[in-house]
Amino acid sequence: MAQATATGYDPRTYEPLTFHDAARRFRTGDDTPRAFLERCLATIEEREPVVRAFAHLRPDLARAAADASTERWAAGEPRSPIDGMPVGIKDLLETKDMPTEYGCEGLRGNFPQRDNAAVWALRQAGAVVLGKTVTAELGGSHPGPTTNPFDERRSPGGSSSGSAAAVAARMLPAALGSQVGGSIIRPAGYCGNVALKPTQGGINRGERQATSMSTHGVHAGCIEDMWQVAIEIARRAGGDRGWPGLDGPTTTPAPRRPERLIVLETQGWAELDDASKEGFASVLGQLRELGVQLLGRRDSPLIESLEQAIGDAREVCNAITGWENRWATRNLVDQHPDGVSERAKAVLARAEAMSVDDYRAALLAREATQAAHAALAGSADAIITLSCPGPAHVWLGDEPGKPLAPRPTGDPVFNFPSSMLFAPAVSMPLMSVGGMPVGVQVFGQPQQDAAMTAIARWLLGAVAPVAVAGDGTGHAPVAG
Amino acid sequence: MAQATATGYDPRTYEPLTFHDAARRFRTGDDTPRAFLERCLATIEEREPVVRAFAHLRPDLARAAADASTERWAAGEPRSPIDGMPVGIKDLLETKDMPTEYGCEGLRGNFPQRDNAAVWALRQAGAVVLGKTVTAELGGSHPGPTTNPFDERRSPGGSSSGSAAAVAARMLPAALGSQVGGSIIRPAGYCGNVALKPTQGGINRGERQATSMSTHGVHAGCIEDMWQVAIEIARRAGGDRGWPGLDGPTTTPAPRRPERLIVLETQGWAELDDASKEGFASVLGQLRELGVQLLGRRDSPLIESLEQAIGDAREVCNAITGWENRWATRNLVDQHPDGVSERAKAVLARAEAMSVDDYRAALLAREATQAAHAALAGSADAIITLSCPGPAHVWLGDEPGKPLAPRPTGDPVFNFPSSMLFAPAVSMPLMSVGGMPVGVQVFGQPQQDAAMTAIARWLLGAVAPVAVAGDGTGHAPVAG
Repeated sequence: MAQATATGYDPRTYEPLTFHDAARRFRTGDDTPRAFLERCLATIEEREPVVRAFAHLRPDLARAAADASTERWAAGEPRSPIDGMPVGIKDLLETKDMPTEYGCEGLRGNFPQRDNAAVWALRQAGAVVLGKTVTAELGGSHPGPTTNPFDERRSPGGSSSGSAAAVAARMLPAALGSQVGGSIIRPAGYCGNVALKPTQGGINRGERQATSMSTHGVHAGCIEDMWQVAIEIARRAGGDRGWPGLDGPTTTPAPRRPERLIVLETQGWAELDDASKEGFASVLGQLRELGVQLLGRRDSPLIESLEQAIGDAREVCNAITGWENRWATRNLVDQHPDGVSERAKAVLARAEAMSVDDYRAALLAREATQAAHAALAGSADAIITLSCPGPAHVWLGDEPGKPLAPRPTGDPVFNFPSSMLFAPAVSMPLMSVGGMPVGVQVFGQPQQDAAMTAIARWLLGAVAPVAVAGDGTGHAPVAG
Repeated sequence: MAQATATGYDPRTYEPLTFHDAARRFRTGDDTPRAFLERCLATIEEREPVVRAFAHLRPDLARAAADASTERWAAGEPRSPIDGMPVGIKDLLETKDMPTEYGCEGLRGNFPQRDNAAVWALRQAGAVVLGKTVTAELGGSHPGPTTNPFDERRSPGGSSSGSAAAVAARMLPAALGSQVGGSIIRPAGYCGNVALKPTQGGINRGERQATSMSTHGVHAGCIEDMWQVAIEIARRAGGDRGWPGLDGPTTTPAPRRPERLIVLETQGWAELDDASKEGFASVLGQLRELGVQLLGRRDSPLIESLEQAIGDAREVCNAITGWENRWATRNLVDQHPDGVSERAKAVLARAEAMSVDDYRAALLAREATQAAHAALAGSADAIITLSCPGPAHVWLGDEPGKPLAPRPTGDPVFNFPSSMLFAPAVSMPLMSVGGMPVGVQVFGQPQQDAAMTAIARWLLGAVAPVAVAGDGTGHAPVAG
């Protein structure tokens, strides 16, 4: 398992931990959910002291659940294809048997003993909830202790840091994350996961509605496990209130070759390192050779319109999310003045300087981007772009006395578009730069989750992963 | 104050408690917020033993807040026109200084010490939060202890029972309620309040997002106080996440005579008592004499389409709301098996028998009604119908050993339409039947909150309230 230790990453040789193929052996008794779990626990014991993916871990509960699953498989009556799958739950989602602390000092010990709707659905499907994974504080930018499994000096990304790292370190085949700006797709890109950020409203978030562009999603080692986890949740708990929710086949959609893809630059292109540009160009070159037509901003005024509309995606998304989190954060700061980071307090201060009309203007800007995206529905099968701004950067913590480094879990600049467009996005581990993963994503029109999964599945099979040399210093956060 | 004791109600003589006119005297020192509060407290002392509107009452905190307001008015620096207004908060909304128990045994003692966004906004505007008002359990149909201020044997309606009753008993000039099916407008109708159920998303509900057709709203003694409370909240906390929120003038919109009104029968018409029909006919007769054109289902195929679309409003609304509350209720029942009513458990059982596709079908049915309503945007200025199915019924509690009476807080049959249409609705105390209030409501297209307020204000001035004799037995809940 050299590929899973902290010696760098090569997408051509890395072998992820997968469940769907193991489950085939559960029926014959050649393997069992309990044995699968024990292998996960052994990996956790080996890697967790450095990776630090978990906020809470309950092997005792997981073993009991895995034993029950083992009996169901032995009886030929598994509840679903993911019966027995060990899963991690981002520590923003409530679980009835473990605390939910939001990565926040002020919420230490918070233990509401409720299951989030998605967690309830996973248990109904027979999945084994093994632990809560580290989240950046409150799903924001202040990082937790998790390190990148391929280089402990680097960020795993965030805010779904622990979910991404646990999957990348082969501790778990899948884990739930959540995204508002870029909290699923970016850490997946930095860690080499496959991941789904569904259409807005695609997976029931339960009573915690968070913000208007928040979604639950899935990190996994392979696309089969990713889809199966998502659809098993959606079949049982549906989407958010008022939304139709994720829909599609009950097993992973067959690979589908896209005819045309739009290559989106986003606000992030100008700052991207050359090695990542080179790797992405190589992926695009392969696609062209495979007969896929690639369209860019210079090929169509509609694409140019979308690029321009997302030209201030960062500002629009930060305004919307800041405003929407304002009251929850204010309550928390009032209750626990010393229990919330200076980063979160700075975000709150900016939100509290906003007026209702500032918020409305940001909503209107978001609607304009959605209109620009909808106008492209007939132009291509999907949009393709990077999942993250190059490889993860080195992050060794804030330096006392210096200004807070911005975005210590990385820049969501490649993620704001799919978030604000309410678009389903799938990240694929198709590149490495300097021995670190760099993900590539496809995203599409709302409700096209299954189509994006089918296209991603085709890309994963048809495109040879690209390893680019380079110093891999990534997009370092700088003070200011 | 004979009109405010339990000797029956006459809309022609009842004098509500109002704030906006008192506030004029705060500037001159002829009255003060503290003195206003003391009058409220005296009424509460007199009436509360029978009315039982409050779940929690904090006169000490209210006196301190009223004194601070008194100083601001004396200094000529009130924070808003509602600075110093005593208000009640439905006990589904979190308040940092009082428990929030949802009218539910299982949540007795729940005290999260957070302010709901709307409560925060009220405090920012200088309002005096005096207490939490009784809600039917979890905002559902299982009643609390509140009685109708005009006949203690009768229901005040629900689920905003305490907010409606406190205003009707002149304990408070205004109180916050919330509506999913009919929880603001129906109790307002039963209690003779003016009330606003805003456009869906109109008032920021904070982290508690409840269901996809839940809104915060305002009960008040007069339309000026109703609008001022709503707009002061919306100016500070905006609407729900993702919604533009309530907008309109910073003081109450001027009265506006409608040219045309659509008279909607709804599912409730067939079961309505004759006296209430007679009273409503008298209101409509006055409107005709005032030159307002009235249109009904026989006048337009579009109106007939809307009547047909809402023909199963009850079933559609109950399916949507049941499904959306399912996980929160399941968690609560798991935690507190004996702390949740049999009524709520029966609703949960029906929700847990639903599939995701049942829910999607109900959402589609709701969208179809919204399309039918939107098609009428040019046909009339508003829709007019009753706020409640006749006068409040006698409710003396469940009888042990007998089947649970359905809908002990009354039938939302006249309220489902505006809820599922996301429409702003204003209830007006224009009728009594057998000495009990029966409200009349107008509702309009989404975002027309100010227009509905202007039309309601005109009706309140132009239509002579109608008192109809009758036994006033109302729409008694029957077992089955």
